[in-house]
Amino acid sequence: MNICLALSGGMDSTTLLADLLDIYYPDQVFCLGFEYGSKHNKYEIKAAQAIAKHYNVKYQLLDLRNVGNILKSDLLLSGGKIPEGHYEDENMSKTVVPGRNLMFASILAGYAESNDCEKVALGVHKGDHAIYPDCRKEFIKALDTCIYLSSDRKVEVIAPFIDMSKIDICELGIDLEVPYELTRTCYADQEKSCGKCGSCVERLESFELNHEKDPIEYV
Amino acid sequence: MNICLALSGGMDSTTLLADLLDIYYPDQVFCLGFEYGSKHNKYEIKAAQAIAKHYNVKYQLLDLRNVGNILKSDLLLSGGKIPEGHYEDENMSKTVVPGRNLMFASILAGYAESNDCEKVALGVHKGDHAIYPDCRKEFIKALDTCIYLSSDRKVEVIAPFIDMSKIDICELGIDLEVPYELTRTCYADQEKSCGKCGSCVERLESFELNHEKDPIEYV
Repeated sequence: MNICLALSGGMDSTTLLADLLDIYYPDQVFCLGFEYGSKHNKYEIKAAQAIAKHYNVKYQLLDLRNVGNILKSDLLLSGGKIPEGHYEDENMSKTVVPGRNLMFASILAGYAESNDCEKVALGVHKGDHAIYPDCRKEFIKALDTCIYLSSDRKVEVIAPFIDMSKIDICELGIDLEVPYELTRTCYADQEKSCGKCGSCVERLESFELNHEKDPIEYV
Repeated sequence: MNICLALSGGMDSTTLLADLLDIYYPDQVFCLGFEYGSKHNKYEIKAAQAIAKHYNVKYQLLDLRNVGNILKSDLLLSGGKIPEGHYEDENMSKTVVPGRNLMFASILAGYAESNDCEKVALGVHKGDHAIYPDCRKEFIKALDTCIYLSSDRKVEVIAPFIDMSKIDICELGIDLEVPYELTRTCYADQEKSCGKCGSCVERLESFELNHEKDPIEYV
């Protein structure tokens, strides 16, 4: 049986991919990417493509920009400035994209059913819980039930990092020799990562606490 | 507060729209349409546009054809022939589009949150239950929980027709003076309805049992 996941090009989904490849062969793993009009989309898609190539797995990009156009969030090109500071700060909630994970997971579920995948894997983790409702444990549980009931084919949702912090994920990734130099985390609409947005701050912290140097360049 | 629904251009969602307009003003009702590569898509979209115009409500069409491309179903242009016969027959299950309702509902939920809608309304009914898992009561209940937990904005899912048959819906629509002559039900890739696919058979039966003539033309 196969498995599919959303590969954003960030640390979490890339580590998830590496982790899944401990169990599945590369030809059993299908990655989907979503272009939904976020400010950092073009950079993370480039990263995801390089990562898929590195691991020799199938990657398919879906254009959802017209869906992104009807949503409101500062993460989107149509939204305001990306806030700076720590992830858990109140102003980071402006980067929530309404229903994003549910939407991606529902497309993954349809894809799973059409491509003999037994599972949909999501890279959500403990650090996302404060700001993003659709990364919380109770949501993932409800999503699993919902996807299970949505079809007779019985696709399961797994989120192996749900009880892990970004620091734990980084530790696992270092063990698994994840090519973090290929990943893209920054929310800003610029080639080089800003080092200041909540996403960058969290990434830098996760390397620091693992006594490793983040291999990407910052402004 | 506003409400949003998926307006396919068929009898169910059109009657749902008419029903909602008993409670909401037209400027509080937002309709979304989805182009996902089904054989009858272009005809039902034309119908939906005419219906939205008739009721003077906002209608927005989203292009999901590249998502449709990764799904397998005989309902899609990429699939096999649409089977003929009664809806509940086994071969009609080939017209299931994996995860379709979940996908549409998740986009509606994001739209609801971005546009001050308190509710997402779905036109699923009892007659769909046999073939379509994502029209069943337990799925709708799970979906409501899932959408509720997916965001802090707390959007509710309603499916007022869940315990009604197509015949009941047709009866309600006749009472509400729904312009059924504008609706499109047939699954076939042709301008005029075939009268033979499960969808046509069910429609014709619903008018017949209400002692009314279906106002659309058949081949």
